[in-house]
Amino acid sequence: MWPKETINAGILIIGNEILSGQVQDVNLSFMATRLQEMGIRLKEARVVADVEDEIVTAVRALSSQMDYVFTTGGIGPTHDDITAASMAKAFERPLVCSLEALRRLYERYPSPRAPEALTRMTVMPAGATLIDNTVSAAPGFQIENVYVMAGIPAIMQAMFKNLMPTLRKGPHLHRREVVGAVVEGIIAQGLEDLDKAYPHVEIGSYPYWISETNHGVRIVIKGITENEVTSVESAVMALMDQYRAL
Amino acid sequence: MWPKETINAGILIIGNEILSGQVQDVNLSFMATRLQEMGIRLKEARVVADVEDEIVTAVRALSSQMDYVFTTGGIGPTHDDITAASMAKAFERPLVCSLEALRRLYERYPSPRAPEALTRMTVMPAGATLIDNTVSAAPGFQIENVYVMAGIPAIMQAMFKNLMPTLRKGPHLHRREVVGAVVEGIIAQGLEDLDKAYPHVEIGSYPYWISETNHGVRIVIKGITENEVTSVESAVMALMDQYRAL
Repeated sequence: MWPKETINAGILIIGNEILSGQVQDVNLSFMATRLQEMGIRLKEARVVADVEDEIVTAVRALSSQMDYVFTTGGIGPTHDDITAASMAKAFERPLVCSLEALRRLYERYPSPRAPEALTRMTVMPAGATLIDNTVSAAPGFQIENVYVMAGIPAIMQAMFKNLMPTLRKGPHLHRREVVGAVVEGIIAQGLEDLDKAYPHVEIGSYPYWISETNHGVRIVIKGITENEVTSVESAVMALMDQYRAL
Repeated sequence: MWPKETINAGILIIGNEILSGQVQDVNLSFMATRLQEMGIRLKEARVVADVEDEIVTAVRALSSQMDYVFTTGGIGPTHDDITAASMAKAFERPLVCSLEALRRLYERYPSPRAPEALTRMTVMPAGATLIDNTVSAAPGFQIENVYVMAGIPAIMQAMFKNLMPTLRKGPHLHRREVVGAVVEGIIAQGLEDLDKAYPHVEIGSYPYWISETNHGVRIVIKGITENEVTSVESAVMALMDQYRAL
């Protein structure tokens, strides 16, 4: 479906709390939805622990393969916040104190209750560009094609919205959805024929299963050309109608 | 925190629907929680699209690094279900029809409404072992150290529970949580000192931010030795008490 010149993105979620199951990640679906709206293809997401080697390996792999990489987590003031140092290592740059980040933090918290901890959030790889944090002031940063953001959803979302206007946009995707209480298998051949007939349209088939008597399938149709998407949508609806009675 | 002989696991989530944001993944946190309970360390999770090359690359990488790999998604009857074929390619095995899977499906659906589609769910790499599906009968399968499961949460959960008794267990983890409305930075130095004093205890600091006047931090303490975990818990509570008034 995606044309050759597609803008590809990767997401790197940094945090033991996700891998231990104590926190349900919501940042991935937030970014995935917005990237899709911008016509950027989210190609892969990874979740790694707060371990330097693992962060370095993952960010190097994603950075070399993607146009954009978005990371969340590990940029706070405590000992387990090792993302900035890991990014410096991954890109072989020294860690520096960002005076602009320091200025923003002191402007927001004129008499900080933990001055040293505050300054820890200003340490980042040399040459990084700040990402605005309109919630709690401590900025994220961009280094090469990697955007490093907070893990707290409210802050991450504010940061992501602030950087969105700076990203290149891809082609607009047309998207349709058809849901029906039919057995997925019964329309499988019809879907496959459509998939072959429309190579530039992506046809996703997502069964749902609520109970033995309440299950069916949701067909998601996506493509760059609206005409093609509409044609596939009509064909899928006809396919559903044909088998609904069975 | 984890001892040398730790059992490591990886998760591979296969599905365009997660990468496009149209579905919020819940399988990761389900498995993460149970792996933690079993003393198995979830080291990394990846999400890839329904694209053969990407599945093959990811499963090979995870399989070679981990003791166990758990995959979800892409084992249904439609054209976009390419997980079984991708696994066969990754492990260089031919695709065969599992007669036992076929038997189970015909036992459950004696007059299938889509016989050909039904048989598609019996195709898997040669030598694979079946994973029971008590919900809708179509089994998952295990090949080498990789467990291939459905993406529908109810079915995935049933499969995972069925295979849990077959997994090796790691050491039991003791886990405590201390939550307080203190500024994360103000206890950062105290936490770091504790982290150094107790190298076998993992101390995670997870700030929450509801509003300018309602924010604080949740400290999660984990370790193999209960005494050590209890000592750290007491120390963190004292640290919180010391700074709560500020």
